[in-house]
Amino acid sequence: MLSNRFNQLMFNNIRYYSTSGKPLIGFIGLGNMGGHQAMNLIKKGHNLVVFDVSKDNVNRLADKGAKVAQSPAEVAKQADVIVTMLPASAHVKSVYCGENGILSTIKPGTLLLDSSTIDPATAREVADKAAQHKATMLDCPVSGGVGGAEAGTLTFMVGGSAGDFEKAKPYLECMGKNIVHCGDVGTGQVAKVCNNLVLGISMIGVSEAMNLGVKLGMDPKKLAGIFNTSSARCWSSELYNPCPGVLENSAATRGYTGGFGSALMNKDLGLAVDSAKSIGEPLFLGNSAHQLYTLVCAKGEGHRDFSVVYEYLQKNNQDNNKK
Amino acid sequence: MLSNRFNQLMFNNIRYYSTSGKPLIGFIGLGNMGGHQAMNLIKKGHNLVVFDVSKDNVNRLADKGAKVAQSPAEVAKQADVIVTMLPASAHVKSVYCGENGILSTIKPGTLLLDSSTIDPATAREVADKAAQHKATMLDCPVSGGVGGAEAGTLTFMVGGSAGDFEKAKPYLECMGKNIVHCGDVGTGQVAKVCNNLVLGISMIGVSEAMNLGVKLGMDPKKLAGIFNTSSARCWSSELYNPCPGVLENSAATRGYTGGFGSALMNKDLGLAVDSAKSIGEPLFLGNSAHQLYTLVCAKGEGHRDFSVVYEYLQKNNQDNNKK
Amino acid sequence: MLSNRFNQLMFNNIRYYSTSGKPLIGFIGLGNMGGHQAMNLIKKGHNLVVFDVSKDNVNRLADKGAKVAQSPAEVAKQADVIVTMLPASAHVKSVYCGENGILSTIKPGTLLLDSSTIDPATAREVADKAAQHKATMLDCPVSGGVGGAEAGTLTFMVGGSAGDFEKAKPYLECMGKNIVHCGDVGTGQVAKVCNNLVLGISMIGVSEAMNLGVKLGMDPKKLAGIFNTSSARCWSSELYNPCPGVLENSAATRGYTGGFGSALMNKDLGLAVDSAKSIGEPLFLGNSAHQLYTLVCAKGEGHRDFSVVYEYLQKNNQDNNKK
Amino acid sequence: MLSNRFNQLMFNNIRYYSTSGKPLIGFIGLGNMGGHQAMNLIKKGHNLVVFDVSKDNVNRLADKGAKVAQSPAEVAKQADVIVTMLPASAHVKSVYCGENGILSTIKPGTLLLDSSTIDPATAREVADKAAQHKATMLDCPVSGGVGGAEAGTLTFMVGGSAGDFEKAKPYLECMGKNIVHCGDVGTGQVAKVCNNLVLGISMIGVSEAMNLGVKLGMDPKKLAGIFNTSSARCWSSELYNPCPGVLENSAATRGYTGGFGSALMNKDLGLAVDSAKSIGEPLFLGNSAHQLYTLVCAKGEGHRDFSVVYEYLQKNNQDNNKK
Repeated sequence: MLSNRFNQLMFNNIRYYSTSGKPLIGFIGLGNMGGHQAMNLIKKGHNLVVFDVSKDNVNRLADKGAKVAQSPAEVAKQADVIVTMLPASAHVKSVYCGENGILSTIKPGTLLLDSSTIDPATAREVADKAAQHKATMLDCPVSGGVGGAEAGTLTFMVGGSAGDFEKAKPYLECMGKNIVHCGDVGTGQVAKVCNNLVLGISMIGVSEAMNLGVKLGMDPKKLAGIFNTSSARCWSSELYNPCPGVLENSAATRGYTGGFGSALMNKDLGLAVDSAKSIGEPLFLGNSAHQLYTLVCAKGEGHRDFSVVYEYLQKNNQDNNKK
Repeated sequence: MLSNRFNQLMFNNIRYYSTSGKPLIGFIGLGNMGGHQAMNLIKKGHNLVVFDVSKDNVNRLADKGAKVAQSPAEVAKQADVIVTMLPASAHVKSVYCGENGILSTIKPGTLLLDSSTIDPATAREVADKAAQHKATMLDCPVSGGVGGAEAGTLTFMVGGSAGDFEKAKPYLECMGKNIVHCGDVGTGQVAKVCNNLVLGISMIGVSEAMNLGVKLGMDPKKLAGIFNTSSARCWSSELYNPCPGVLENSAATRGYTGGFGSALMNKDLGLAVDSAKSIGEPLFLGNSAHQLYTLVCAKGEGHRDFSVVYEYLQKNNQDNNKK
Repeated sequence: MLSNRFNQLMFNNIRYYSTSGKPLIGFIGLGNMGGHQAMNLIKKGHNLVVFDVSKDNVNRLADKGAKVAQSPAEVAKQADVIVTMLPASAHVKSVYCGENGILSTIKPGTLLLDSSTIDPATAREVADKAAQHKATMLDCPVSGGVGGAEAGTLTFMVGGSAGDFEKAKPYLECMGKNIVHCGDVGTGQVAKVCNNLVLGISMIGVSEAMNLGVKLGMDPKKLAGIFNTSSARCWSSELYNPCPGVLENSAATRGYTGGFGSALMNKDLGLAVDSAKSIGEPLFLGNSAHQLYTLVCAKGEGHRDFSVVYEYLQKNNQDNNKK
Repeated sequence: MLSNRFNQLMFNNIRYYSTSGKPLIGFIGLGNMGGHQAMNLIKKGHNLVVFDVSKDNVNRLADKGAKVAQSPAEVAKQADVIVTMLPASAHVKSVYCGENGILSTIKPGTLLLDSSTIDPATAREVADKAAQHKATMLDCPVSGGVGGAEAGTLTFMVGGSAGDFEKAKPYLECMGKNIVHCGDVGTGQVAKVCNNLVLGISMIGVSEAMNLGVKLGMDPKKLAGIFNTSSARCWSSELYNPCPGVLENSAATRGYTGGFGSALMNKDLGLAVDSAKSIGEPLFLGNSAHQLYTLVCAKGEGHRDFSVVYEYLQKNNQDNNKK
């Protein structure tokens, strides 16, 4: 009760701020990524009202002055702009369209910025429902990882009209460095999914080729050097080489810790696979790559960096096939 | 008969030149690539003795002053250095070790530079046999295509001892710009095969992702732009994008003509697949990529540029599934 | 025993409601399969009330004495037992749970028999909702094709409790010959999806092996004979061989017409792929098989029998790779 | 030396016997399979002269009265009929065409029966060389495993002319029950390779489907029962089900021990892959299956029965992805 009362008071305060000319920003989803993003908005001088299912996550933001809401609906009642950062499509549907969801209380004219990575079809579906409430929703998935979220250097891939993109840009610039307009609603997700499709495939490709070359007698640094000055050049070889020791600061060199987990890559490849399936387009290597990451995760390596596929794919040293 | 007599005379002349301090260079395999390479050696002032199964190919070089031999053995009898550029492992075995092959008449101390792309095991096997004749063989496969061969800007990936590499370098520099020492005999082929393994995989990956993105509503140039500034960045997207219109001068934009044929990519992926098989290492995406190019070739597209996989993989416009 | 007695009484009540003493059977989805199934129920003396989006489909049944309803809701208002045969999960959700759907007007105690092939998760979800309306839903997907539907010789794979299975059996026996109890709700779909997963994979396997053998000089009938008496023996080789001419009455021999379309196999493999994905289990060959059928459909062959993969996979006769 | 002298004497005796109307049978390769085959020939009253690299293997046969030779050449000098059972193509080439090989001393008119499983191209190549020595070689690979070899119930798939097949049959019938004429030289290998291609693919298919079904709640025996009465029916499900407990006497039920090792399946799939590659035919599932067995072997499971792929493919029980 007390906390409800407290919220009621806070609510009035917020209303007050909100009408004083400064927009109130709602933030829902304060995990590894969202927590840093919300913090950066506060650092840039914004007032926030936040919600998360974890009290710890909420408290970290409350300590920095964010107002606390008890549900997405309560956020939406107050906020002029809402940023969401959620794990998957199902969470986005529930936070926006579910009971006590954003759309149940949203104010006309609210700007909705979803930076979750979800399938493009869901992004369009939820944006359509938001439009029925006269709210504008843009899909703004990110790349850059937890490090980029903390440093405020994320890349945002934004789907929405040119006009809406201009409205969203100032807020996104508080959290990222590179804000790219991809096209209409949904294309932010399309860009993210397609980018990570290439990334997953080329990481496996580089892993297979590095392993093959090393087993056939080549020095790994020399082999990577040839790749990087030739037609095998790619981000996975040059900046994130999966062979331990090739790069001083790679995830591979520190035992495949940190970085971008295999389970996350598996999720993103799954989005690509689903999207292609929904329109009947073949995705041969995409599917094979997805299966390989599914196997890596099934064997308990989902938490390790996605470059661990290098280690996973190679022949065991102790060959006990002849037992 | 006359031409034999003529050759005999030329032969004597050559011997003379050859002992005058200037090495005589043999060149075997004067096709699309080798023809240009031989021409560049002549341009740099070298004397050549050449052989090819095609008279037309031979005549083009003879017109520029090259001596003509009737067999690899006849080349080897005279030359101090021999460069070979042949289609596949079987030709290399035959030209070096067959009847009337190079090793049947080779002079001790001859330097053998094989710029064919073949499997590393064959490269090592033939080099071993050459060593039994006190000749030194290095594997020097190239990248850069017909354009690079003509312009003399090829990259050579060289396998052999450091000392032998230094001896080979001046000759290779007449034909290429970037001469890379990869390690011991065979590693030139390893580097080439591994490089093209990554290339084939990433070309299919980029093709699948560009197709998926475009079909889901993205502008192809914008999508490629995002790839090229993010973690999907790779040679296949940046310099050789398979989607027509994205790059002004790509093979894709000119109807997948010219460039590097699908049949050649299929051959190189086949070398990777065979090499991995011979040592029991898995090659998941490599095998899938090889199968895809096998299918592309089986359907009659082997002569088109390897980026044609973009066109091949997509759904037909006239969907007659509901017939 | 008591509960059986009780059921007997309930059954009589139902009989009574139906007015003539005979239960009224609703049938929704009167396409290629459902039309024949409904006809067989009429032939066995049942009274039907039917709905389909196509008037032609409805009229064929009306001509045989079926009552016509204008919506699933109108069917459900009257029927004691409802059979549905729909194309995919989305249709099942809509026909049962949508506006004017079955559950909007359903009578307590109604027996719901869904013979559509859909994903097991949706089957369970809809059955749960039916239970909230005190109705009992069983998943009863079929095998046997249009021929089996017409002849009344379908196999039904049934998911539901043992008691409910006994209630459903008399109705299913009017439409099929082999009524198999698979386990709890959803397992009928599981059995169907897993069966067709093996079927799709083995059809491709037999196609690849028959093609390879024939191209290497074997007589196709002799090769099939060896398979069928050895460890390659399978339904796809023995009863449905994809090589034209091996079996007199196969789809292959009549130009891949009739039979089970590639688009349907693609759909069923898609269900397997989705189910495995939802629980994180790898499905390597299942995914490759799905991609191959996706490609077959993308090239416009979705309407041809699924054994057409034999024709699709092989090398073109006119090899124009050397153009 | 003494034993050489002894052999010399025996040699004379053998010649004598050999001309007395009873053919002397040479046997080379007395391992797990060949040892039993040779024993069965002796049991049927044949005189044998044998060679193997292992003295233990040779001694077992010598104890039963077989003459011992020191090389394939020494076998060939004496024998009228020679049976070989060797691990792979390289051994066949060496035993027949190498130094001290069969062809170096072979008598005109000798009948050569190679029951090794090798690639069809090598089978034809060696048969051609034998023909140059006026000897007749047939490829006679077997199925039936060590059990069948011991019991004399092997299936022989025989490639050669109809007349030669008739000459070979009486000898093969001493070692097997089912002697199948496949066509010209090489087709015995083609049949074997194609059969095992289907076998490997369907074993993985059944494994994936059994695993999927069980994880989705189905009883494994019930699921197998449905497969075996429906279109998923195949040898791998019915007689060799990979799910432990489904069949009482399967390799799966006894911990994947005994049976046909994964490394052997990997070898046979490799022959299929190579054969398809050599003629440019696609082999999508065949390649994926080969890669999967390559991975199984790379992880040290090559010695376990090939149905172990069921165990290998599934998700670990202890899901530590969330670590």
